[in-house]
Parts: sequence; C-alpha cells; structure tokens
Amino acid sequence: MATIAPSRPLVTLVNVFRLHDPTNQQQLVDVLIEATQAVMRHLPGYVSATIHRSLDGSHVVNYAQWRSQADFEAMLQQPEAQVHMRRAFELAQVEPHLYEVVFSDDAVAVA
Amino acid sequence: MATIAPSRPLVTLVNVFRLHDPTNQQQLVDVLIEATQAVMRHLPGYVSATIHRSLDGSHVVNYAQWRSQADFEAMLQQPEAQVHMRRAFELAQVEPHLYEVVFSDDAVAVA
Repeated sequence: MATIAPSRPLVTLVNVFRLHDPTNQQQLVDVLIEATQAVMRHLPGYVSATIHRSLDGSHVVNYAQWRSQADFEAMLQQPEAQVHMRRAFELAQVEPHLYEVVFSDDAVAVA
Repeated sequence: MATIAPSRPLVTLVNVFRLHDPTNQQQLVDVLIEATQAVMRHLPGYVSATIHRSLDGSHVVNYAQWRSQADFEAMLQQPEAQVHMRRAFELAQVEPHLYEVVFSDDAVAVA
C-alpha cells in the first residue's frame, strides 16, 4: 500500500505507457512488477511503486515515489534498471515526468 | 491524504494534462483544486483526488479514486463538473483513462 500526501517530502514519477498492441498489456504489467521487485526496491531512495492497468487495455501507469530527484536520476543510470526499461519501451510509447503533490483530498466517509 | 492498494475496490482516474503554455501551470492546478472542492467531493462515489504539478512545468496530473466506473461516468454528466472540465481543457491537452491497481509495493523503511 502507498500513501500520497503533500506533506511527504517526495518526488513522484507518473509514467504513462501507451501500448503499441493492447494484447501485450499483461506482459508490460509483468515487466514492471519484475523491475520493481528485482531492481527498484533495492535502490537508495526508493519509496513505493504502484502499477495500474487501464480498463480499456490501452495503457499502463506506474505511479512511483522516490525520496528525491537525485535518487531517481541515479536509478536511471543503473544497468539493471536499464535492461527492464528497454523491455518496457519495446512494448509501449512512454511518457515519464516527475511531479510534486500540491493538493490531496480524501473523502471522510466512503459508502 | 490518499491511500493506494490493490485490495481497495476502486477505479482510479489518471488524468494527464499537457499544458498548451507552461506559464499556466498554477492556473490549471487552481482550476482542478476548485473543481474538487466545489463539485467532485460532493458527488456520490467520490473517494479522493490528488493534484500533481510536474517539476518541469509542462504537465499536471489528477490522480483520482472513485467507488466505481458508473459513479465516475455519472460525474461526467453533471453540468457543474462540465463547467470546470471545460476550463481545464482550454489550458491543456487532456488524456484521461480509468485504471485498476494491479500491484503496489511500499518500502518498509525509508531513510
């Protein structure tokens, strides 16, 4: 489970993958889970990763939290991380950006 | 604060806004916060909304949780919601998709 709140001093990667072929959605999900478990979670500054599949099959989103932009950029230089990223890039067009949470609202009571 | 976990029976909207003009990033953030506070949080099935600004100024992301796809689609039909969405669409190219969380990993200890 991950928590999102403006008070946490984090950077957030929102990486949107648009699949070249929607029949590969599960394959891309598996690549990203494997990357998280085998590489990312062992790197300095890793906080969380959450993988989402779009209900229409066309996209996958990785919502990942890092302690700092410097930790995120150090990850990008890791050869083990690059192997997994290349596999993901073969399956989808990728649009990664780093974000800061500026506002978060949660319903007090959910029916 | 919002929480993300595969065990929560939710749908997640990840709405990526690419600004026509990055100098309008704060304006778009304000539109989305106002939409959440004035409209969304009062609608049936609303769970949470978290607004993110990209560090490079080019994008804004709304990460929102709804109880069900039907609740989300009912929101889209609300005239009050449409007023705010039109203002956001004037400022940015919008790519909304509904997602299901399939995997979430959180570091046990964060330095």
